[in-house]
Amino acid sequence: MISDWLMEIEAVVLANGDYPTNPLPLKVLAEAPYVICCDGGADEYIHRGHVPDVIIGDGDSLSEENREKYGHILHRLSDQETNDQTKAINFLLSQNKRHIAIVGATGKREDHTLGNLSLLIDYMRAGADVRTYTDYGVFIPCRDMHTFSCRPGQQVSIINFTAHGLHGKGLVYPLSDFTNWWQGTLNECTETEFTIEAEGEYLVMINY
Amino acid sequence: MISDWLMEIEAVVLANGDYPTNPLPLKVLAEAPYVICCDGGADEYIHRGHVPDVIIGDGDSLSEENREKYGHILHRLSDQETNDQTKAINFLLSQNKRHIAIVGATGKREDHTLGNLSLLIDYMRAGADVRTYTDYGVFIPCRDMHTFSCRPGQQVSIINFTAHGLHGKGLVYPLSDFTNWWQGTLNECTETEFTIEAEGEYLVMINY
Repeated sequence: MISDWLMEIEAVVLANGDYPTNPLPLKVLAEAPYVICCDGGADEYIHRGHVPDVIIGDGDSLSEENREKYGHILHRLSDQETNDQTKAINFLLSQNKRHIAIVGATGKREDHTLGNLSLLIDYMRAGADVRTYTDYGVFIPCRDMHTFSCRPGQQVSIINFTAHGLHGKGLVYPLSDFTNWWQGTLNECTETEFTIEAEGEYLVMINY
Repeated sequence: MISDWLMEIEAVVLANGDYPTNPLPLKVLAEAPYVICCDGGADEYIHRGHVPDVIIGDGDSLSEENREKYGHILHRLSDQETNDQTKAINFLLSQNKRHIAIVGATGKREDHTLGNLSLLIDYMRAGADVRTYTDYGVFIPCRDMHTFSCRPGQQVSIINFTAHGLHGKGLVYPLSDFTNWWQGTLNECTETEFTIEAEGEYLVMINY
């Protein structure tokens, strides 16, 4: 199911956390039909020989050379209320690109990591079908019941946002209406798929 | 105020995320009166020429050499319901050590980072005066009103857990009863201290 999802990606957002090192997010980026870089994130992408379709942000963390050379694809949006990752998602949604993978969203400042991951819930509310691929696993924002493909033994974490009636099938530890993030972490698949029953929103991390 | 707090540290927990690289957590660790390492975290600490007071965990991520050599300080606790960071905090609380700094708690798997940071709220509930020093800033679990020392321009993030009536003084952006993590991130100090008024629990990250 994860690989089916990857086949339908319409755009990839390269955020400005740590540049990916795991082969999966690197593959997602390499095979992307459309790449939008968040400001300074573009420097490393360009340095590796690629050209993004769009660079979003106010350009202040982009190298001077790239700001000149790629000025024609730089979309300066000075909205102080949203970060560059959100500007990128809004830009893609305005172009009717809904099936979006985000890479490079974690690994530097922890408050940026927390912000970028929690924003997945907002993007889902805005109609995006979006996932974040980190060096360790994939974060999937969910509403209500979901079934996921997995390997027996694969580690899964469930972070509750607004859900109640949480119940799992195919997981080692039982779910409940978690009130703190850590409570749903470090669960484990028992079969080749697992199901989460719930009413409301939650974030699933499936470790690779 | 942050430096006053550092002077009173009774114990430091070295968790098993990335080993610190920033000078501040390294200094906290170097000057600790008592160090408790979480399992595999001990290997790097020992490799750098130190000896922990206690190693906590089931020993399975510790090198065979260190498991033999330091078996006398290894506390094997096989409770599956808590992670090693929590075992370390509970061990310290049982010894009446309440003023605790945690380092090395972030930087690997994001679900571990989320778990370790959110546990600060639980440790506060259990009576610990605890903070996590990462490579980027310090995370402080809070209940109700708090005042913090800072530098004008220093970046601050506030993650709401159970608080309402959130109101800030000495910060650029107004606070509200945030319902998603990102909403309170990337605020900024205007003076040499800032105050958060609230009823309930929240997590503050002050970037160095």
